[in-house]
Amino acid sequence: MDLHPPHLLFLGDVVNPLDAKTAMGVFDWRPEQCVGQFRLPGCTVDLGLPDLTPRAAFERGARSLLVGVAPLGGALAPSWVDSIRLALESGLSVVSGLHLRLCEVPALRTLAAATGAMLIDVRVPPARLSVASGRKRTGKRLLTVGTDCCVGKKYTALAMTRALTEGGVDATFRATGQTGIMIAGSGIPVDAIVADFLSGACEQLTPDAVENHWDVIEGQGSLFHPAYAAVTLGLVHGSQPDAMILCHDPSRVTIDEFDDFGIPDLVTCIRRYETGARLTNPAARVVGVSLMTGHLDDRESGAVCAETGRQTGLPCFDPLRHSLDAVLSALMS
Amino acid sequence: MDLHPPHLLFLGDVVNPLDAKTAMGVFDWRPEQCVGQFRLPGCTVDLGLPDLTPRAAFERGARSLLVGVAPLGGALAPSWVDSIRLALESGLSVVSGLHLRLCEVPALRTLAAATGAMLIDVRVPPARLSVASGRKRTGKRLLTVGTDCCVGKKYTALAMTRALTEGGVDATFRATGQTGIMIAGSGIPVDAIVADFLSGACEQLTPDAVENHWDVIEGQGSLFHPAYAAVTLGLVHGSQPDAMILCHDPSRVTIDEFDDFGIPDLVTCIRRYETGARLTNPAARVVGVSLMTGHLDDRESGAVCAETGRQTGLPCFDPLRHSLDAVLSALMS
Repeated sequence: MDLHPPHLLFLGDVVNPLDAKTAMGVFDWRPEQCVGQFRLPGCTVDLGLPDLTPRAAFERGARSLLVGVAPLGGALAPSWVDSIRLALESGLSVVSGLHLRLCEVPALRTLAAATGAMLIDVRVPPARLSVASGRKRTGKRLLTVGTDCCVGKKYTALAMTRALTEGGVDATFRATGQTGIMIAGSGIPVDAIVADFLSGACEQLTPDAVENHWDVIEGQGSLFHPAYAAVTLGLVHGSQPDAMILCHDPSRVTIDEFDDFGIPDLVTCIRRYETGARLTNPAARVVGVSLMTGHLDDRESGAVCAETGRQTGLPCFDPLRHSLDAVLSALMS
Repeated sequence: MDLHPPHLLFLGDVVNPLDAKTAMGVFDWRPEQCVGQFRLPGCTVDLGLPDLTPRAAFERGARSLLVGVAPLGGALAPSWVDSIRLALESGLSVVSGLHLRLCEVPALRTLAAATGAMLIDVRVPPARLSVASGRKRTGKRLLTVGTDCCVGKKYTALAMTRALTEGGVDATFRATGQTGIMIAGSGIPVDAIVADFLSGACEQLTPDAVENHWDVIEGQGSLFHPAYAAVTLGLVHGSQPDAMILCHDPSRVTIDEFDDFGIPDLVTCIRRYETGARLTNPAARVVGVSLMTGHLDDRESGAVCAETGRQTGLPCFDPLRHSLDAVLSALMS
């Protein structure tokens, strides 16, 4: 998939950094593809990139505006349409992972056709979908799973892919969400698949491979999320993971934006994921716990990881600040 | 939704009665709306209705051809298109629940426009979908759940709705699949919903109601099915059931068409459904077990229900041959 890099990252008028996770993810993992940020009045999120208009970004070499904001539900805010028009008029293509497809907005399609720029929607299911077969595939699979949304599943999968590759293990990152697809340049947006075909799409995402190859699959949602648990279970079943890493934000006690829903203790979470995954892979096991500890200093971060390691009996780490050696050993054992 | 009754039931050329479950369901629960059956050469399924051509059915008062066959995957067999054309030319509308929408077939759309007949696709998601809120709704909800597909979830829900209503309890059948929607005249085809909105659609299907009203919700799939468990979990979470009835075919030991996947013992199934449902309704419980015993004589049917009742400690019954009094008592207690 050609996403027309380098990008100008569109942040809209968001104030919650969690809503800008697409822009942050692309900037963290593909910084060489990011020219600047484009923010509307009221936006309080700042990536530290130069603030540029679409015209200025084009002059600095940008070839696309990447919609870097992912509000709940994925709808396109009316106030953003003008920004997208401005980008198209400035010669930039527009890359979007919103549920609403830009190429289905007639005014934008007309404008893109007139300017020669492209509307690139990454949240589009594959044209041919099948019902899952449940057939065990060759090769190895690692899936990141979570206690909630936005707890480091994508970052952990990317960090594990990098660590495996650096260690000489053949590994492929498999993207399942809009940001992951923008980082990897390919993948399947599992949350946009019609429910009957969800597990089948996940089987298609990680086909047969040679026996010592690892697919490292980006997890989605959480089994404990009242809106998205179905997406998570379909991904768990279709992935047939040999191994899982449980991702968690230790500062969170309830599901984000769903305050009535508490997050179970991690030992319960591990047991529930293993029970779910063993339907399609009886050998499935959780091999480590990944914690987001960005809000803690080094001493506190080390302490919470050590304590979580004792509670769960598993290697526990923050992939952005600690070594992955222990979890890699557990994965390979 | 106006489905243009009465219907001529189209059976195509199917030979497996399971593939004709839509026609059978409509005939069993809405016999007064069925004028005849229309079968192609090779069809071995027989509902006992008069065999009629579309023209003859129209003359006997039929106003629609109802596509009563649901093959795996939901595709429209090319050999059936001619039958649908014939129906339209005879003045009949066509009602379909296939994944492929008739109104997206240009030749059929043109013909329908010319004859004044309607193409009525019931497997269409609502125009406005929302992400689930998880908010507890007023009123009571009963959901049928299963060990597999095709184990009596729809029939059990319809029988419970009828029994509740006859007992003076205000109850509404809520359809979640094509056949249920054809019987009820309304509903949401949950297996056609994009995964992110699945639980939200189920919340929309069963809105707030008065406190002593029961929504009786048709279940889908099975938590133990390698392809469809995600659909099931989304329905369980969005339904927020106060009560569930586990449906099972005692002659089955593996998932239909997935021979490598065994069906767990019923006590395990009950525990797994209760664990799943308690995410959105901590009071959720399984109140009974519904068995398909059509292949057994009366003595054998009674014996298997009694034995299952002992194993599970719950009222156990075949809704097509036994009293529902015990499960109604358990539901109301």
